[in-house]
Amino acid sequence: MALIVYGGSVSPFVRKVRVMLAEKGVEYTLEQVNPFMPPPEFLTISPLKRIPVLRDTDRPEPNTLPDSSIICDYIEHKYPKPALYPADPFERARALWYEEYADSVVATNVGGGLFFERVVKKMMRGQTDEAVCQKTLTEKLPPLFDHLEHEVAAKEFLAGGAFSIADISVATMFVNFEHAGEKLDAKRWPKLADYVEKIHARPSFKALIDEETPFVQRFRAA
Amino acid sequence: MALIVYGGSVSPFVRKVRVMLAEKGVEYTLEQVNPFMPPPEFLTISPLKRIPVLRDTDRPEPNTLPDSSIICDYIEHKYPKPALYPADPFERARALWYEEYADSVVATNVGGGLFFERVVKKMMRGQTDEAVCQKTLTEKLPPLFDHLEHEVAAKEFLAGGAFSIADISVATMFVNFEHAGEKLDAKRWPKLADYVEKIHARPSFKALIDEETPFVQRFRAA
Repeated sequence: MALIVYGGSVSPFVRKVRVMLAEKGVEYTLEQVNPFMPPPEFLTISPLKRIPVLRDTDRPEPNTLPDSSIICDYIEHKYPKPALYPADPFERARALWYEEYADSVVATNVGGGLFFERVVKKMMRGQTDEAVCQKTLTEKLPPLFDHLEHEVAAKEFLAGGAFSIADISVATMFVNFEHAGEKLDAKRWPKLADYVEKIHARPSFKALIDEETPFVQRFRAA
Repeated sequence: MALIVYGGSVSPFVRKVRVMLAEKGVEYTLEQVNPFMPPPEFLTISPLKRIPVLRDTDRPEPNTLPDSSIICDYIEHKYPKPALYPADPFERARALWYEEYADSVVATNVGGGLFFERVVKKMMRGQTDEAVCQKTLTEKLPPLFDHLEHEVAAKEFLAGGAFSIADISVATMFVNFEHAGEKLDAKRWPKLADYVEKIHARPSFKALIDEETPFVQRFRAA
């Protein structure tokens, strides 16, 4: 197998890359790396300590790429079918924007403000700061969910009329939201809740959610 | 003219887009927006308050795109020649990584830790905190310059053997470094200094540097 993905499987960014590979039917090996305690040699392949990193052993060294967005772009170009980026330049750019929106503000709040507190800290034998979680849930996330509710509108997919990197990037963040013990309020954000549920039901997402959930629940309950 | 770029011309990200357009020979209009005091309606086209934003009036509304990396991707797809992203998937990914490296850690330090202090604050009638600048110059930037010196090595261009988005993204940050009154130490980083000088001599960069410099110097000296 040519591709090795380095990273922790509960990272939304690692999941993004794994969903992309599953949707394209590309095999790979996952090597677990804890981004909070990476082995020293990891910095040589990820200067900004980001996970995942992809290694393509089909290529001569250095054959590693850091950053989930860049890895997804590489996978799309190396394995073009099925296309997971819109062909129209403007719709493509919209998809990239949803990806950026998810990877930046949504990730910061769902990740740092909720999943980190309720799951990652437990993995590291620390204590959840529930006040941080409540601030995230009541103040930080609602404006982002309002924005996404407006963007999803009546669409099945966020950009270009088909499943794309936009849907992968947004929906992966909601896996971590659910791993943290939360469920999107379908009364307040009905379109977004329906959209997320449908994306999570795709085989590519479902297989990973099923794989991760028992592991995460064990720590969350600890 | 179909394209409108919204943003302040001294922003490294606005310059990145303008260099891209110049290299492709695409005409556009620049509408100045101060990212630190944007007009209220700007938030509707840039939810994360980022500049630049591109508007393409060839398209029906909503026809705006935020984020310099996404705008450059759009320009590349709408105006493919000359190509400014490597064709090989791995070299393309390397180019995207240099772009990300420049846009994140280099921008944070050159922008926030130096250019903001010495130029932007003066524009807003504030005072430079020279201690912040010295910390940036002596502690924050040298490891980044060491990394880039190693990456540039003996290459004329960073990725794919030709001028690309990687060179645009890295070199635009050094325009702001120079706008802040600094010059890269060619004894300590000889390859990087030579590389930056050559990229800045391209007509696309030189025209903007010449346009911006008198304006910046007026404030820096204030």
